[in-house]
Amino acid sequence: MQRKKIVTIGGGTGSFTLLNGLKKYPLDISAIVSMADDGGSTGVLRDELGVLPPGDVRQCLVALSDSSEMLRKLMNYRFEKGGLKGHNFGNIFLSALEKINGNFSKGIEEAIKILNVKGEVIPVTDTDTNLFMELKNGKKLRGEEDINHNFDIERVGIKKNYLFPRAKANKKAIEKIIHADIIVIGPGNHYCSIIPNLLVDGICEAIRKSKARVVFNCNLTNKKGQTENFYLDKYVLEVNKYIGKNRIDFVTFNTKKPSANLIKKYERQEGKNMIVNFDGNGIHSEKFKVVKADMLDRKKIKKNISDPISDSRSFIRHDGEKLAKVLMNIIESGV
Amino acid sequence: MQRKKIVTIGGGTGSFTLLNGLKKYPLDISAIVSMADDGGSTGVLRDELGVLPPGDVRQCLVALSDSSEMLRKLMNYRFEKGGLKGHNFGNIFLSALEKINGNFSKGIEEAIKILNVKGEVIPVTDTDTNLFMELKNGKKLRGEEDINHNFDIERVGIKKNYLFPRAKANKKAIEKIIHADIIVIGPGNHYCSIIPNLLVDGICEAIRKSKARVVFNCNLTNKKGQTENFYLDKYVLEVNKYIGKNRIDFVTFNTKKPSANLIKKYERQEGKNMIVNFDGNGIHSEKFKVVKADMLDRKKIKKNISDPISDSRSFIRHDGEKLAKVLMNIIESGV
Repeated sequence: MQRKKIVTIGGGTGSFTLLNGLKKYPLDISAIVSMADDGGSTGVLRDELGVLPPGDVRQCLVALSDSSEMLRKLMNYRFEKGGLKGHNFGNIFLSALEKINGNFSKGIEEAIKILNVKGEVIPVTDTDTNLFMELKNGKKLRGEEDINHNFDIERVGIKKNYLFPRAKANKKAIEKIIHADIIVIGPGNHYCSIIPNLLVDGICEAIRKSKARVVFNCNLTNKKGQTENFYLDKYVLEVNKYIGKNRIDFVTFNTKKPSANLIKKYERQEGKNMIVNFDGNGIHSEKFKVVKADMLDRKKIKKNISDPISDSRSFIRHDGEKLAKVLMNIIESGV
Repeated sequence: MQRKKIVTIGGGTGSFTLLNGLKKYPLDISAIVSMADDGGSTGVLRDELGVLPPGDVRQCLVALSDSSEMLRKLMNYRFEKGGLKGHNFGNIFLSALEKINGNFSKGIEEAIKILNVKGEVIPVTDTDTNLFMELKNGKKLRGEEDINHNFDIERVGIKKNYLFPRAKANKKAIEKIIHADIIVIGPGNHYCSIIPNLLVDGICEAIRKSKARVVFNCNLTNKKGQTENFYLDKYVLEVNKYIGKNRIDFVTFNTKKPSANLIKKYERQEGKNMIVNFDGNGIHSEKFKVVKADMLDRKKIKKNISDPISDSRSFIRHDGEKLAKVLMNIIESGV
């Protein structure tokens, strides 16, 4: 039997979790990764070396890598002292490969071989572009860092999300989307990981054209001041709006409520009532099928200062294995 | 037939050349590497991260690595811009592995797995030590950088070469020397790569005790103001003096004169009459057997600013394959 061709669209730790779960199944996986990151180690490397942002790609490579635990640890290692302070080893690795090979995509192809990656990791674009958000009051936010730290987005309202300079989709990304059996969008930061992929010229057109079933993994939590009043339907509406067609066939939705303890901890950091509701207005569109399941991660994360992933993942998050199982059910149902 | 156990003692590009040649033969190779480097990228990493000097070890790992050409290129890649400028990727790689694994030797063991290294690369010591040279006029030179750039050493005379703090040999280095069939010393910078190994407590004792035949690869060129008046016998005398016994059984000596062009180029940089003579004073000790052969490298080196090896190797140097062939003859002669 031919392996099902699955394309994931996202970036950051959401994709890391998803791919970590998916790689255990006999799938032909292509991970399309957002290229809008400009924070931390990634931002410094972009500025100083003129490389494309390696951070999100690195996480996907590590997730799909079949190499030793040590190599995975190494890729996530962050230097704590000296001139390398704050730099993530994996980012340095990808930047060196980009420099040696002349472009980022070729660098990733070499990284895939070195790290024994099961599948493909495809930067959504090879254009060195920046993410912008223009608010209705005229204010322009530039880059993930800027957007992520603004909590007035929902109140003021967004006029426009865009990339500058305009970015053309990586050819391979287009091909993979067109020929996919299933396209999985999210989970991930709405404005900084999901939408930036859809802003790249050619991606949405390919999604519209593709015969693949499209699954959207709804986030577990909203983001303060940004998607605070979002609920399942609203997320789907937003993503479909960018795609330009009601293209989402399935939505996975977590039904398991986090423990009171976890919610308390989360609320201290992120504000009240941040768990995504199924139905915000008592209405629910019937244009897509909702698959409800317990997909909550109950593992305790040990905070590890050398591992930026433990650092940046929200406390309330998907369990990659549970999520993958739900997706496999959708794939195998053949609907 | 059991593979012959060969131990090489050296450091830097001399070991790189030698190991590159040796790895094509069915040998059990252990490369013991000097740990006195404090220059360039290595020096910065030592200062800032408190790691042991990775540079020489890196070159040996790359030489013995059976991984892809790309991984070898990557390990030698040097950043040209920004905060990483001057840093060698392989050095950063080894420093991260040392940090993750808690000590340098364990880090190297992991590097050996990742790089698919055929053989062992053993830092001569795990002690964080520094190389010193005290001259007869009381002046103290500290570290490779200092020593390498002093051209008065021969004229003033050396009072003492030493390590501070005193360094204890790596247990594995001792074991490998004791059980070796053949020990190969050099080629390499006399005061900065060869002698520093012999200054480590336990190394010379192990060489004295070992039943291995000992081969010394005589350098092709002398160093201005340092070993300017050295000739074959004098090198052997010096090394035997440190070992504390006339332990050298064989000396390999290159007979091929470099082209007039190459000599001219070399003289412009290093001074006149720098080719090592077989016999400086018309006398030659009979305590060791001299194997004379054409071992001159005739390949043109392309200078590559991202590859520090192309940068730091002298123009007149050993051809690793020819050198290995001569050594194999010695090994197989079973003398």
